[in-house]
Amino acid sequence: WRSRKRVQIFQYVFLKWTLALLIGLCTGFVGFFNNIAVENIAGFKLLLTNNLMLQQKYVLAFFAYAGCNLVLAAVSATVCAYIAPAAAGSGIPEVKAYLNGVDAHSILAPSTLFVKIFGSIGGVSAGFVLGKEGPMVHTGACIASLLGQGGSRKYNLTWRWLRYFKNDRDRRDLITCGAAAGVAAAFRAPVGGVLFALEEAASWWRSALLWRTFFTTAIVAVVLRTLIDFCRSGKCGLFGRGGLIMFDVSSSHVSYSLRDLVPVLILGVIGGIFGSLFNRLLDKLLRTYSIINEKGPVFKILLTCAISLLTSCCAYGLPWLASCTPCPESLKEPCPTVGRSGNFKSFNCPPGHYNGLASLFLNTNDDAIRNLLSSTLHEYTIPTILTFFVSIYTLGLLTYGVALPSGLFIPVILAGASYGRLVGRAIGSSLPDLDPGLFALLGAASFLGGTMRMTVSVCVILLELTNNLYMLPLLMLVLLISKTVADVFNRGVYDQIVKMKGLPFLEDHAEPYMRQLAASDVVSGPLMGFSGIEKVGNVVHTLRATGHNGFPVVDEPPLSEVPKLCGLVLRAHLVVLLKGKMFTEGSRSVGMEEFGRRFGASDFAKAGLGKGLRIEDVELSDKEMEMYVDLHPITNSSPYTVVETMSLAKAAMLFRQLGLRHLCVMPKTPGGAPIVGILTRHDFMPEHIIGLYPHLRPHK
Amino acid sequence: WRSRKRVQIFQYVFLKWTLALLIGLCTGFVGFFNNIAVENIAGFKLLLTNNLMLQQKYVLAFFAYAGCNLVLAAVSATVCAYIAPAAAGSGIPEVKAYLNGVDAHSILAPSTLFVKIFGSIGGVSAGFVLGKEGPMVHTGACIASLLGQGGSRKYNLTWRWLRYFKNDRDRRDLITCGAAAGVAAAFRAPVGGVLFALEEAASWWRSALLWRTFFTTAIVAVVLRTLIDFCRSGKCGLFGRGGLIMFDVSSSHVSYSLRDLVPVLILGVIGGIFGSLFNRLLDKLLRTYSIINEKGPVFKILLTCAISLLTSCCAYGLPWLASCTPCPESLKEPCPTVGRSGNFKSFNCPPGHYNGLASLFLNTNDDAIRNLLSSTLHEYTIPTILTFFVSIYTLGLLTYGVALPSGLFIPVILAGASYGRLVGRAIGSSLPDLDPGLFALLGAASFLGGTMRMTVSVCVILLELTNNLYMLPLLMLVLLISKTVADVFNRGVYDQIVKMKGLPFLEDHAEPYMRQLAASDVVSGPLMGFSGIEKVGNVVHTLRATGHNGFPVVDEPPLSEVPKLCGLVLRAHLVVLLKGKMFTEGSRSVGMEEFGRRFGASDFAKAGLGKGLRIEDVELSDKEMEMYVDLHPITNSSPYTVVETMSLAKAAMLFRQLGLRHLCVMPKTPGGAPIVGILTRHDFMPEHIIGLYPHLRPHK
Repeated sequence: WRSRKRVQIFQYVFLKWTLALLIGLCTGFVGFFNNIAVENIAGFKLLLTNNLMLQQKYVLAFFAYAGCNLVLAAVSATVCAYIAPAAAGSGIPEVKAYLNGVDAHSILAPSTLFVKIFGSIGGVSAGFVLGKEGPMVHTGACIASLLGQGGSRKYNLTWRWLRYFKNDRDRRDLITCGAAAGVAAAFRAPVGGVLFALEEAASWWRSALLWRTFFTTAIVAVVLRTLIDFCRSGKCGLFGRGGLIMFDVSSSHVSYSLRDLVPVLILGVIGGIFGSLFNRLLDKLLRTYSIINEKGPVFKILLTCAISLLTSCCAYGLPWLASCTPCPESLKEPCPTVGRSGNFKSFNCPPGHYNGLASLFLNTNDDAIRNLLSSTLHEYTIPTILTFFVSIYTLGLLTYGVALPSGLFIPVILAGASYGRLVGRAIGSSLPDLDPGLFALLGAASFLGGTMRMTVSVCVILLELTNNLYMLPLLMLVLLISKTVADVFNRGVYDQIVKMKGLPFLEDHAEPYMRQLAASDVVSGPLMGFSGIEKVGNVVHTLRATGHNGFPVVDEPPLSEVPKLCGLVLRAHLVVLLKGKMFTEGSRSVGMEEFGRRFGASDFAKAGLGKGLRIEDVELSDKEMEMYVDLHPITNSSPYTVVETMSLAKAAMLFRQLGLRHLCVMPKTPGGAPIVGILTRHDFMPEHIIGLYPHLRPHK
Repeated sequence: WRSRKRVQIFQYVFLKWTLALLIGLCTGFVGFFNNIAVENIAGFKLLLTNNLMLQQKYVLAFFAYAGCNLVLAAVSATVCAYIAPAAAGSGIPEVKAYLNGVDAHSILAPSTLFVKIFGSIGGVSAGFVLGKEGPMVHTGACIASLLGQGGSRKYNLTWRWLRYFKNDRDRRDLITCGAAAGVAAAFRAPVGGVLFALEEAASWWRSALLWRTFFTTAIVAVVLRTLIDFCRSGKCGLFGRGGLIMFDVSSSHVSYSLRDLVPVLILGVIGGIFGSLFNRLLDKLLRTYSIINEKGPVFKILLTCAISLLTSCCAYGLPWLASCTPCPESLKEPCPTVGRSGNFKSFNCPPGHYNGLASLFLNTNDDAIRNLLSSTLHEYTIPTILTFFVSIYTLGLLTYGVALPSGLFIPVILAGASYGRLVGRAIGSSLPDLDPGLFALLGAASFLGGTMRMTVSVCVILLELTNNLYMLPLLMLVLLISKTVADVFNRGVYDQIVKMKGLPFLEDHAEPYMRQLAASDVVSGPLMGFSGIEKVGNVVHTLRATGHNGFPVVDEPPLSEVPKLCGLVLRAHLVVLLKGKMFTEGSRSVGMEEFGRRFGASDFAKAGLGKGLRIEDVELSDKEMEMYVDLHPITNSSPYTVVETMSLAKAAMLFRQLGLRHLCVMPKTPGGAPIVGILTRHDFMPEHIIGLYPHLRPHK
């Protein structure tokens, strides 16, 4: 577009920012809608259970509780399994892979968006140990993708101006903005959202993008603030002060000295170990689940229901084991609390007492986290926290992988916060300076560092959640330590899921063994190429026979003196050309003018995911098959190239840094074939290389 | 290194993190030392002036004040002008250029470090309107560079392990860490430091680097905290609570509604205009100053002294124009304050009154900012703030460019805060919700956005400075608006200075006109190349005659059948080869084994800045000049290449993204010369391209 007219540049810039604005607005609204829905549904469920319990109808209360959960779970799982299986799971790995250049179908489809929103509401309301944060990121990305495509082409809604966004780069930029907006809406953390997009989601980053994501998340923040102000007047049902998570601990006084560093460091080390263990177990479990899930949607739904029942039993059954605690004196809020939220659940206890475990279990996950981070000292006994920690850790593992949109942030924070509070209670007496709420926060940070392996973004998200900057140095240290420890054992949880799903994710560094190979060593398969003016039949045959997306075009005699690489042609462009039937009887060159009369630039713009023409859509008569087609007008005449002797590591860096899809390998010595091969993303995958050269396998 | 042994990889990783730790420790200490020194010197000066004024010796007080300032200014300017002229100015543009790949001599030399630290202390103590933040970034970068080189080679301190860091990439990584540590130490903003390094300083970024800078800044934060705790007991002289800047406004209650958005947006627009005006005026002024500065060090010192006198006159003279304000009642602190710091300077006022302008002027810049951000409503009258704003804006402009290490953050924040407070006072009565301290903060943000054009990092730095997260959405909006408005007029102040200094900075996007050119269009000058086995005399002659740093090596008959590009050889490597005198009588090839016996890999490692061998250092006899040298062992046989017909924009992206120094342009058709030319950084500079093709000049 840069060589276009001033008006068009203005259109482009205007649209770019308008889209960023719209993404921010929509994501903010959806995020808020999510919250209201969850608070109301879960609130209704918990109130019902509470009321039945107050009437001492304990069995009925259990059936009401478990029944609500089961119905919500079954509905969500059905929607997810039948309409959009791609919406299951966190969604962050998929967004990450898409931004790395993996165009997997249906990742960002409208149906995925629909299921992601409603499935997430159902799943969270059903009391599962899962979060709405990962799905929110995916939701943001879907919204961005849909807006960028200008609605669906099916319904003829594509706006002409949007043609500027029909290419990889602009689409990726939009989706990066969407992912950032998702985090901003989920955590109400605008700066954290930008950093998340930068650190975890995006594979390519430009500073112009930093600014645009920042704008998007600022819009989200303003939208959320406005809506929360609106709801404060009580117009949003049960959506109360527990609304959007925001664990404000700024009131707690934080002071620590150097000698507190040691326990904090140990906390980080153990948190890192637990975090990496979580990743390892999750990997095993997902492999087991995938056997069940492959059997069909019905099995998926049954699995989800089973986990739902298990969760209900834990949440309702375990508090019976806990003893009742007398309410602390000098408390402002009523104890035990009667309404929906609040720290002190009565459960089976006599008046004036509360059940600590029920306060954690029979609550929304957000409220449970808030309770764990609160700084009252002796609120929960050690057995209470231990029970909670073990069951949340296990349930969090078991829940991820069922057919529901399920985020990992909340389970990890829950487990981490209970772990931290446990440590705080255990050693708290020797360190009177540190309160258990602070320990819970550090524990959550250590678990997040150990599983997600993000540093700066998690740090900023936690800061924005808790609104307390004084803890910054401790938070940073804990995150660094737990990440370092966990990195010894395995990879981050999102990378692990990306790998397990078989998405060809390109790392941003070259593997050590790549140094020992040359670019030509990994060229695989016979090279399919076309002549500059090719027989239609040949083109159709090759397109049908292979799955390649890029083909070299070689001018052979008599077109040129010696065989000469003319450039690279893309499958999508070939199909459009064939569809346009610009054929000639003999082998004749078609000028650019004649070509320009038939096709406009927008015909060759990149179509939406899974929406492009396919070769099967093109129908040609036998006579047409014998005609010739001139490929020169659609050939990219200066593709990126490397010499065959270049080290594979260097070629991989070139491929990755420039975000290429095809890389031509040229011969070192002129005279032979004009091209050695084409490298694609798959040729750089470790599995492919190790498959060709098994002796390079890194020794573990 | 990746193909090396396990022990060596461990050495590398261990050293990498140790260096990050050391950078953090050193920068933290230096930053703290800076603060103590400034607080003590400036405190002594202000106390002296204050005491003389209390005795009503007004003229003597002026001479004491102006004299102290003048002496400090003269000493600092002398040190700067004679020892390290490179230390003048902010230093951020230089660090930015270095990280972009510009190896300008002396930017990171030890003498620069020395002058930067002490010149900055002198300059800030002398009451100039300049900050210690920019210099602190430069200081951090210098420390990182020195540590990475393992001290100075002169004194034989180079440690063997450090050989891993003798390449561009690792050195750049270290210096990025240093820059982040500098920001963290200057503002006590660890996350802000990381983001600053990411957004403004670094040109290439990997997520591994994010983690390392994060570690470095965490260390800085811990060091600072420990030292501040140590100083709290009063062992650090006049270093009191005003120590490290940290404008804690978390106590002020912030609430705003949607209707407050409009004035805030207008504030942002005007702030953006003022900011870009600042840049424009600064550009003009620096051009004027450079005429004076070029005349010699003496003129530099005289200019500095003149500005110092002007500043003293303003600071001491203007408060006489202000009227005395009666002290507000219900105040905890004594008014007027007697000691060094505090909001209420007595100046010429009777007891029970204070002089508002003196409170701002006769203070360190940090305290002045703190006063401006304070939320007491009627502390300063509108004329007071207006006078202060105008004089700070002017003095800030005049001061930058004198021969002193001078940061731009503080002047911009000062001017912005007074502008914001002015607006707050002017319209405050109609908006009772917003307090003037909040307006001051937003004003500072708008000025920062308008001059520096950073968004996320400025936002986080301001958050960490003020410790109040509730203002986040407003801050983000103001920053975005002022940046957008200012971008219409000109570029960011650091980019502007980089350009004015003539440093060849590579932008991260291709210019529009580059689309219309091919790579071969900008190849300039005759191509100097070598044969695979070349006569020593030819090599020496070419090296002496040209300034090129890379030369193509072409194997010609009889070495190969047709002329064939063998690869690229670097000047530095050629000089080492010549120095090693590995010559042969006839044209004979030297095997790798024989070569390996003579040279080790470390001989060819990249030397420190300005420390490599030069061709003038190599002395050769006439006989040796007639001998031959085999260039194959030192030739990079797979340089990155592009075809001559590739669009210049694509070639530029390749060059920039991979951080190349040389890019070979290959012919499209085989048979002719095996290489068309070599593109270097200078060939991509707009000036060069526009010089070749004047008709492409963008119309303005």
